[in-house]
Amino acid sequence: MRVAGEQRRSLWASPGRDAVLVIDQRWLPHELRIEELRSVAAVHEAIRDMWVRGAPLIGATAAYGIALQCSRDAGAEALRAAEALLNGARPTAVNLAWATRRMCERLLALPERERRDAAWREAAAIADEDVAVNAAIGRYGSELLRALAERRRATGRRGPVNVLTHCNAGWLATVDRGTALAPVYAAHESGLELHVWVDETRPRNQGASLTAWELGQEGVPHTVIADNAGGHLMQRGDVDIVLVGADRVSARGDVCNKIGTYLKALAAQDTGVPFHVALPLATLDLALDDGLDGIPIEERSEREVTHVTGRDANGRSVEVRLVPDGAAARNPAFDVTPARLVSGFITERGLVAANERALRSIAQDRSPAAASAAAGGGTR
Amino acid sequence: MRVAGEQRRSLWASPGRDAVLVIDQRWLPHELRIEELRSVAAVHEAIRDMWVRGAPLIGATAAYGIALQCSRDAGAEALRAAEALLNGARPTAVNLAWATRRMCERLLALPERERRDAAWREAAAIADEDVAVNAAIGRYGSELLRALAERRRATGRRGPVNVLTHCNAGWLATVDRGTALAPVYAAHESGLELHVWVDETRPRNQGASLTAWELGQEGVPHTVIADNAGGHLMQRGDVDIVLVGADRVSARGDVCNKIGTYLKALAAQDTGVPFHVALPLATLDLALDDGLDGIPIEERSEREVTHVTGRDANGRSVEVRLVPDGAAARNPAFDVTPARLVSGFITERGLVAANERALRSIAQDRSPAAASAAAGGGTR
Repeated sequence: MRVAGEQRRSLWASPGRDAVLVIDQRWLPHELRIEELRSVAAVHEAIRDMWVRGAPLIGATAAYGIALQCSRDAGAEALRAAEALLNGARPTAVNLAWATRRMCERLLALPERERRDAAWREAAAIADEDVAVNAAIGRYGSELLRALAERRRATGRRGPVNVLTHCNAGWLATVDRGTALAPVYAAHESGLELHVWVDETRPRNQGASLTAWELGQEGVPHTVIADNAGGHLMQRGDVDIVLVGADRVSARGDVCNKIGTYLKALAAQDTGVPFHVALPLATLDLALDDGLDGIPIEERSEREVTHVTGRDANGRSVEVRLVPDGAAARNPAFDVTPARLVSGFITERGLVAANERALRSIAQDRSPAAASAAAGGGTR
Repeated sequence: MRVAGEQRRSLWASPGRDAVLVIDQRWLPHELRIEELRSVAAVHEAIRDMWVRGAPLIGATAAYGIALQCSRDAGAEALRAAEALLNGARPTAVNLAWATRRMCERLLALPERERRDAAWREAAAIADEDVAVNAAIGRYGSELLRALAERRRATGRRGPVNVLTHCNAGWLATVDRGTALAPVYAAHESGLELHVWVDETRPRNQGASLTAWELGQEGVPHTVIADNAGGHLMQRGDVDIVLVGADRVSARGDVCNKIGTYLKALAAQDTGVPFHVALPLATLDLALDDGLDGIPIEERSEREVTHVTGRDANGRSVEVRLVPDGAAARNPAFDVTPARLVSGFITERGLVAANERALRSIAQDRSPAAASAAAGGGTR
């Protein structure tokens, strides 16, 4: 994506293979800070403390964490320890364990002396596949947006296709392009008139701080709203489609995503607005059927609810307290939207209905080569 | 209610009848600022800029605004001008126009020389009736909470009755006791074990700043949550009832209330949690049938979404910017929950179903005397 007009990814390896570089997203939208992560411990901290976030980006970053470990000690014990450490950084997204497992399985099958090179290649492959997968999601999703534009025209409505999105499932949540925003970027590039309602996404405000920033950098028209406003806008006919990402999707199509997604899905159903989930197949957890029962929901710090950080009038970053002294808070980070509320998934292999048969069928051959082919080439 | 252990109302007249005193709620929860309003213009500003807010409190404050006008000039033209000015301060709550109309009708029927005394008496009556109405809502609603506690016990569940509330429909939204919180206070005083989930209620954070403060002053256990979290908590069985207030209710039972209420009503229906609305009958607008079509929804300043004010580490009040420079925002302040999602209303005359027949029947005799009698006495 473009940042200040320059093309960038959200993470990249150092040429010397001694660091992976990421954006410390905690400083956005006010500051673009690049950080060099030089150890698996640093990668663990960056994931746990959400310098990087978003299921696909967490996976790619963790893959580079394993590569960094291989640059120091590629022994089986060290790799397994790195895998366990990284997997514990965040509990909900399935991509994290998927990426570290893929890395370790591939590497442990090799002689130790070959692991370092192979690890950096494999991490790069995971990152490149993510880009290709998202590009494919973008193509399929933009066709959906184009069809909605046709429908608007056919019913005599003027103005842009209005997309509502929750949290950040954009460039910053992935290596490039985003998942839920990939269709938006693809459609925008092809000249479709679009406007995005950006849920601010309390308590961490990823919408207000990250999605609004990304869309602004790319020149996509957008408006920030309180999370509370989406239902009202849908009732008024001001939303044509809800597009969100996912941290984990169960075999039957239950969607674990940022807290509050379920409320938007309910409103979409109640008002007849399509509700689509961008789903890289690496985020599909076929081992799990019932998403409501089976997915561990991360509880994060109370402080994310009781305090907020922004810029004061002098441009300084200031954290302020919002609640009375002594008030307690709870902070579940995700919720689960039952499959019955999902109009469809947008995967790198096309649109899929939210049911187990359809999901198992599209996921049948999950080899990277097939994914790459489905993504129209890829870069492995 | 108690504030620092002392019994208080949220507004009161000066003994000399030259001012009405209110809490400037914009400074809560960090500071309790009392302001004297000495003119109808000052009352208009206090309502428009939300020093006072909450439909019942807006009504009572506006009534005192008319009284202040009578202390200066009680002529018909001056009264009509004051009424028009006050009614324009906020568009959505029906109580504002209800209170100024009641004042003007009563006063204009009197000779001009009698209006000043009558105005202060009538404004006091409106305030006292609000207290009596809320006390009655508290009694009926606490029976509902008690029944839920019985059901918890009968199904072997331990712990308190968990109430979820949105925005602030407490003491601070009324003259005393609150509407949606009146049942909570009544049940708490009678010894029922309760816990309240407090939606922070973006963008103005009335839950985090006002409801949490009120409940803390009264010693009611509570936890602040992001507005996004309520659906998840309902899915997990952690909410026994949703209790909210209303700014305007249509004849068929559509509920206009703080933006985001509709999303909680949808989640309550989807998870089988009762969703009840505390409704002083002055908030019922029988002239209106379809709430979705007929209620003007106030659009407030973008800045309420793009910026937030809290206390920094040094205890200073600081406003910080949350969004990228140049990002636009929309800020609809209310939404409408269709009657089909409402389990029932709690009025000063008892519980009522959410349909036109039931609502018209309970509202039949809306004279103050009947309301006062229904409220078990009252203080006119």
